[in-house]
Amino acid sequence: MKSKKQESVTLDAPAEKIKEFENSSDFANYFCTYGFLYHQKQMLTDKVRMQSYYKSIFNNESCFADKVVLDVGTGSGILAIWAAQAGASKVYAVEATGVANQARKLVAANNLEDKIVVIQAKMEEVILPEKVDIIISEWMGYFLLRESMLDSVIYARDKWLKQGGAMYPSHATMFLAPITYEEEVSNKYKDYLSAMDGWVEFLEDTKASFGVDMSCLTGSFQKEQEEYYLQTSQWAALSPSNLIGEGVIIKDIDILTCNLDSIKSVNSELKMKINNATRFCGFVGWFDVVFRGSPQNPTSSVITLSTSPYIGYTHWGQQCFLLHPPTRVKKDDVIEGNIKIVRRKDNQRLLNIQITHTVIWSKDGAPRRAQTNTYQMD
Amino acid sequence: MKSKKQESVTLDAPAEKIKEFENSSDFANYFCTYGFLYHQKQMLTDKVRMQSYYKSIFNNESCFADKVVLDVGTGSGILAIWAAQAGASKVYAVEATGVANQARKLVAANNLEDKIVVIQAKMEEVILPEKVDIIISEWMGYFLLRESMLDSVIYARDKWLKQGGAMYPSHATMFLAPITYEEEVSNKYKDYLSAMDGWVEFLEDTKASFGVDMSCLTGSFQKEQEEYYLQTSQWAALSPSNLIGEGVIIKDIDILTCNLDSIKSVNSELKMKINNATRFCGFVGWFDVVFRGSPQNPTSSVITLSTSPYIGYTHWGQQCFLLHPPTRVKKDDVIEGNIKIVRRKDNQRLLNIQITHTVIWSKDGAPRRAQTNTYQMD
Repeated sequence: MKSKKQESVTLDAPAEKIKEFENSSDFANYFCTYGFLYHQKQMLTDKVRMQSYYKSIFNNESCFADKVVLDVGTGSGILAIWAAQAGASKVYAVEATGVANQARKLVAANNLEDKIVVIQAKMEEVILPEKVDIIISEWMGYFLLRESMLDSVIYARDKWLKQGGAMYPSHATMFLAPITYEEEVSNKYKDYLSAMDGWVEFLEDTKASFGVDMSCLTGSFQKEQEEYYLQTSQWAALSPSNLIGEGVIIKDIDILTCNLDSIKSVNSELKMKINNATRFCGFVGWFDVVFRGSPQNPTSSVITLSTSPYIGYTHWGQQCFLLHPPTRVKKDDVIEGNIKIVRRKDNQRLLNIQITHTVIWSKDGAPRRAQTNTYQMD
Repeated sequence: MKSKKQESVTLDAPAEKIKEFENSSDFANYFCTYGFLYHQKQMLTDKVRMQSYYKSIFNNESCFADKVVLDVGTGSGILAIWAAQAGASKVYAVEATGVANQARKLVAANNLEDKIVVIQAKMEEVILPEKVDIIISEWMGYFLLRESMLDSVIYARDKWLKQGGAMYPSHATMFLAPITYEEEVSNKYKDYLSAMDGWVEFLEDTKASFGVDMSCLTGSFQKEQEEYYLQTSQWAALSPSNLIGEGVIIKDIDILTCNLDSIKSVNSELKMKINNATRFCGFVGWFDVVFRGSPQNPTSSVITLSTSPYIGYTHWGQQCFLLHPPTRVKKDDVIEGNIKIVRRKDNQRLLNIQITHTVIWSKDGAPRRAQTNTYQMD
């Protein structure tokens, strides 16, 4: 207990600093949910997530032996505990929210207080007493980049990782594939139409009952509803049967060497062959991360955490970008285009996605009219 | 158009100020939803709300004739438009969110640009060119005080209302009554038990699959689930059949004379007679507001907007504070106790409620054991 107390005095953020952070809009918009054990439990019951990290550590115990480890965003502390159990000599477990206190309890209950130092602070404000050999973190948001938490991991890497140190995971890849998903396309469109029906009724009622004509707001309301129902990406747990073409890589990230600018946006050409005569309903995006260690300290067992429709359920699921209306396609038609992903100006943790595409008919090689669709990812 | 442009230059908050506000935690936690027309429409389709304000203005047109009016939080601008239509010479319509632009459109479409000045700014930062005769506002949150928007109305009153000016509404009253509501009590308790079942399963899985014993977090998880399922007040649209005793007044507010301290909390004794042999499942809270004008400019037609279970649906509904377990009561039993309402420290727009009560049996006048329950209102 003595050493824990000493360390918490030296490494935690000052109480005023934590309070100030908890009053920030970034806390209200983002961090606050991570403070609940219910939310932590949701992540801890994601078997694909858990098994991938577990294997990446315990199948590669020699990589962790006697190493100093930093866990960025430790949450309940599970990765820090595994790293210590795998042989790390010291683990710094950084967590910005109050769930840091739960991590402390868990560390104590597992008799790892001599090895793990839980630090409640934002990663950007932590001062560690030493550099580290390994940075482990589960930083991935929906479609990889939502939440922009990789920023903090890169910050930690540049400041605290030793030359030759390793990142867990070490690589990340984003994929996009064409899908059929008729029920969802149809439901979203029905919901949109129904919202607009309700608006017309509302206009009539307001005019009749209260003498005010609100029809000048119709354009704005319609735009708002289009954005909400038709131009917002959808979380889904798709199965391989939804895929009507192979996933193409739209972004590859080497976590050890990437810089902040390179992960702030995606801009990738698309070329996808349709393998099925069906309705082309839009695109699905997902990601994999891989644990290869570093060139100097590679993992002998390379583990991949995949969130593709070929894998079972993960809490990340996939993100769908639907087309209204969908388009009839045939086997060997080709979809060509481009995807651009940028951060939202009003909230850097959310994304705007723009997909331009044209369908090129296999029969005559003629491109259909190109269309550009924009989506927000909330 | 010229005058509109001139006014928007002089009265709107500077663009940097609006941007700064939109990045604040208060915007993320509270204001942002009001920027959507969908949300405005929900309020505009609340017939009880709309009819009460409509009548308070048009049944009392003489009160508005040639008067200068301030509408605090105008939203889509409807109250400002009615005030102008009722004869106000000038209406300042203040709105902090971007929906101010919709209000401007609506004002123009209704040809009231010469009378209504829409101002996008926080009320606390507005500089009006003159004092006003009437302040109208729809500031009421769930159980009246949630959202704490009355603060801004009081601020506006103290700064901008002329001596003898009137507040619309002029008075507000909060009520509490005992209820039976067995299905909801039972459902919430089942949900709680089910969450705890899930936790036990989670502990076993995590220990078996990943070698970590998380049982030291059981107390914290249980507390979190109790707060969520059992100690959070519930929105409901009750009917008179749920009431098992008359509503008692727990707070009376004179909007013209109240001060900020007096509306920041409620502390009221309770004494309620049960009129029915049934299960006492908790308490329901609601509010009325009344439009009496001011002593110098009283309304001839006094309108009451009530959100009680005796009235039909309002978007406010009522707030229920449930007991786990409920208690058997008989006709003429008396419930005595106390209710305390305070603002939440981490978010001044939300409330914590504490209700202490004991049931006094009519048969022998003996009080049962007193119990104190706390609730958060999210």
